[in-house]
Amino acid sequence: MWLSVVVLVHVLLLISNSVESQSIIDTLPGFPGKLPFKLETGYIGVGELDEVQLFYYFIESERNPKDDPLVLWLTGGPGCSGLSGLLFEIGPFTFDYANSSGNKPMLELNPYSWTKIANMIFLDAPVGTGFSYATTWEAYNSNDTSSTTQTYEFLRKVMAHPTFLFNPLYVAGDSYSGKTVPIIVQEVSNGNKIGHSPPLNLKGFVIGNPLTYEIWDGNERVKFAHRTALISDRLYQSTKRNCQGRYIDPDPNNMQCVEDLRKVNECLDDIYAAQILEPNCAAFSPKPNKLWSLSLHLDDNFIDILHSAPDQVPEPWCRSYNYLYSYVWANDKTVQKALHVREGTKTDWERCNKSLTYTKNVITSIDYHQNLTKKDLRALVYSGDHDMLIPYVGTQQWIETLDLSIKDDWRPWFVEGQIAGYVTIFTEEKYSLTFTTIKGAGHTAPEYKPKECLAMIDRWFAYYFL
Amino acid sequence: MWLSVVVLVHVLLLISNSVESQSIIDTLPGFPGKLPFKLETGYIGVGELDEVQLFYYFIESERNPKDDPLVLWLTGGPGCSGLSGLLFEIGPFTFDYANSSGNKPMLELNPYSWTKIANMIFLDAPVGTGFSYATTWEAYNSNDTSSTTQTYEFLRKVMAHPTFLFNPLYVAGDSYSGKTVPIIVQEVSNGNKIGHSPPLNLKGFVIGNPLTYEIWDGNERVKFAHRTALISDRLYQSTKRNCQGRYIDPDPNNMQCVEDLRKVNECLDDIYAAQILEPNCAAFSPKPNKLWSLSLHLDDNFIDILHSAPDQVPEPWCRSYNYLYSYVWANDKTVQKALHVREGTKTDWERCNKSLTYTKNVITSIDYHQNLTKKDLRALVYSGDHDMLIPYVGTQQWIETLDLSIKDDWRPWFVEGQIAGYVTIFTEEKYSLTFTTIKGAGHTAPEYKPKECLAMIDRWFAYYFL
Repeated sequence: MWLSVVVLVHVLLLISNSVESQSIIDTLPGFPGKLPFKLETGYIGVGELDEVQLFYYFIESERNPKDDPLVLWLTGGPGCSGLSGLLFEIGPFTFDYANSSGNKPMLELNPYSWTKIANMIFLDAPVGTGFSYATTWEAYNSNDTSSTTQTYEFLRKVMAHPTFLFNPLYVAGDSYSGKTVPIIVQEVSNGNKIGHSPPLNLKGFVIGNPLTYEIWDGNERVKFAHRTALISDRLYQSTKRNCQGRYIDPDPNNMQCVEDLRKVNECLDDIYAAQILEPNCAAFSPKPNKLWSLSLHLDDNFIDILHSAPDQVPEPWCRSYNYLYSYVWANDKTVQKALHVREGTKTDWERCNKSLTYTKNVITSIDYHQNLTKKDLRALVYSGDHDMLIPYVGTQQWIETLDLSIKDDWRPWFVEGQIAGYVTIFTEEKYSLTFTTIKGAGHTAPEYKPKECLAMIDRWFAYYFL
Repeated sequence: MWLSVVVLVHVLLLISNSVESQSIIDTLPGFPGKLPFKLETGYIGVGELDEVQLFYYFIESERNPKDDPLVLWLTGGPGCSGLSGLLFEIGPFTFDYANSSGNKPMLELNPYSWTKIANMIFLDAPVGTGFSYATTWEAYNSNDTSSTTQTYEFLRKVMAHPTFLFNPLYVAGDSYSGKTVPIIVQEVSNGNKIGHSPPLNLKGFVIGNPLTYEIWDGNERVKFAHRTALISDRLYQSTKRNCQGRYIDPDPNNMQCVEDLRKVNECLDDIYAAQILEPNCAAFSPKPNKLWSLSLHLDDNFIDILHSAPDQVPEPWCRSYNYLYSYVWANDKTVQKALHVREGTKTDWERCNKSLTYTKNVITSIDYHQNLTKKDLRALVYSGDHDMLIPYVGTQQWIETLDLSIKDDWRPWFVEGQIAGYVTIFTEEKYSLTFTTIKGAGHTAPEYKPKECLAMIDRWFAYYFL
């Protein structure tokens, strides 16, 4: 079905002299046999001259593609590839860590893929992310507003596929996408209103451990560290008093505050901020976790590890070892050929491209959220409650400022008889927002609690109570 | 060496017409080959007529028995067997879960046994616990003060072994032993002062997630639940206000408080209180976790599971499945024979005997702690920071009331480059108290973080900084 319009699209695109492509992928290096689901990859050109070529992975729902939602997934960063979300969070396969080697990463099926219940598009955006590229140097410059406009353009062009035009559409993502998803949703909503074609069947959006406002989210790390026994009551009270709640970018002349923050850093520097109970592998990175740098990139500079013998990889096992294979796999020429990546467009695939020429020109997405509460939309906000990068306490705080009515207040929800998290449902006329914690999960919650997160999204898409 | 005085002791005991025994154990059912450490089991009679027969396991240090400390370990409950501490926490072996079956539990070595660095006595106390028994019905009655007096008597009789008389002696235990250990330490200290023989070379004590005062520790569960994202800010504030901090045994006429506590219970009832991130297996117990019952027993009524086929044991894996094997193993006649358990003295061995005739006649051990701060002693208090039974926030609180000077304030300590917890050192003239969290650990911390807890105890015994 999806393919059926490809020819038409191709013709149209050839006419407009742009470079677009779609390919159905049947097999992939590292995966034994044929793929048991429908995978399509391709480029869609956006911008006036299609100078930005956004690469995407489309996977059809393994349940009922005709009725299941269509979900656009944006991994955070900015600069983290959609493939990272696909391979480590909610996609249909993952690396078979036990049977992989540095030369030969092997893929296995993820039983908790969101493609079990939804049609998923994983997008390499903004430009420069993953396999996305630009045809001019200028087009590599992007920012929050230009990249979201490009993503909206991508969505409309994708919807030239009329097959999924009537499926419920959700825009989703985590981490830095907490900034961009609400903007995209607003663009879609506005576009529909002013009659952009095609009209998109937008139902709502999903954001996980979302960045909303660097200063707020960063400040809340101190409260979170106190709650999770990483800093003492005494130090917390003193830091709060001396810094007056301003921990990010404090007054350098406020010596008491500076001294307190030095102590806070001493307690937190060696914590793996993305899941505070997991080992911290910063030792293999040139720089330790920069908790106060506002960076959301999780350092994983693996080049040295890749070149060292396997028995030199030190104990204990670090989650980031798992990411190693994505570098090897996605930079393998046979893999890129299988994915129909255009030759010569990228020198290196990176899980998270840290050298984007990207300007963060939207300070906070809170105003966008405020606007969205006036619309007929559903929002799901989930937080792995062991994440210190974007702690749930900060997410709760900005949700409170939206001043919505509470429909269902903080109660446990269950997966296989176990508490999977706690949910609160807020409403405002036609708008509803579900906030939930994912108990024990880290920054990219489905990576840590895949079963629970699939149950969450399945129930929520189906309008059930969590 | 230990054995060398056994003959003498035997002769003395035969004269006094009491029933005492010591046996060296070379092999044990379920463990392949000879034991690679020195294990002795035996009974020591205490009370006027030795009517209480306390069973113990002595394991010589695998490092330097002559100089390493001698540690008396008491598992909590009251009523939890020393064998439980030995098999699941800090002893030299543990069940080989993967290779055990319901008929044939297999033992394997625990690389993080405290016997790597200390001479350890695991004691079945108070009377009725584990293989300890009484020769009269009346003698089965015990309470905090009588049982601690009996344990002190046990210690003096054990020290009739002059071999370990000059080793540094530590009294240790966890959970309910937070009540009894300080009392025993005080008895030893007082006994030394008034010239009891033999004088014991007491250096200090160790308590893990210790119960200090049921009401305090219980009340702090609400604060802990709030900090760990199990109850909401709103509910926490409301409960605090309405119940005025009194959550255990609240005023039943205070309807707002009762209603808030109902909601708190709804959030916490299905949490595995001993480690809030692990699955709760209460489904297999006749009663769910009774968080407000003040009980410290972790329910593990396995009789039904034992009689069901292995494939009926439901997912997910629960830590308590591991406890199953201790019932099978310790109730096996060949095992009891190997351990030199006296035939006919006990009908069933239970990991935690819940039918003791035991009166909790000491409300709080805080007064004992207060007294001990006047002495030349070292205390180590550690708290697995994911335990809701005796949360670290409550333990911190009573330590604060001791009003000691802070020598070293809340800083991280490391095991293999990873933060293992946070330590604070308090002093008062000759007294010092080290308080530390064990990051990510539950109620019985060494069961969850064995490597970290061995590093902790090794460094502390050696007077190093953690």
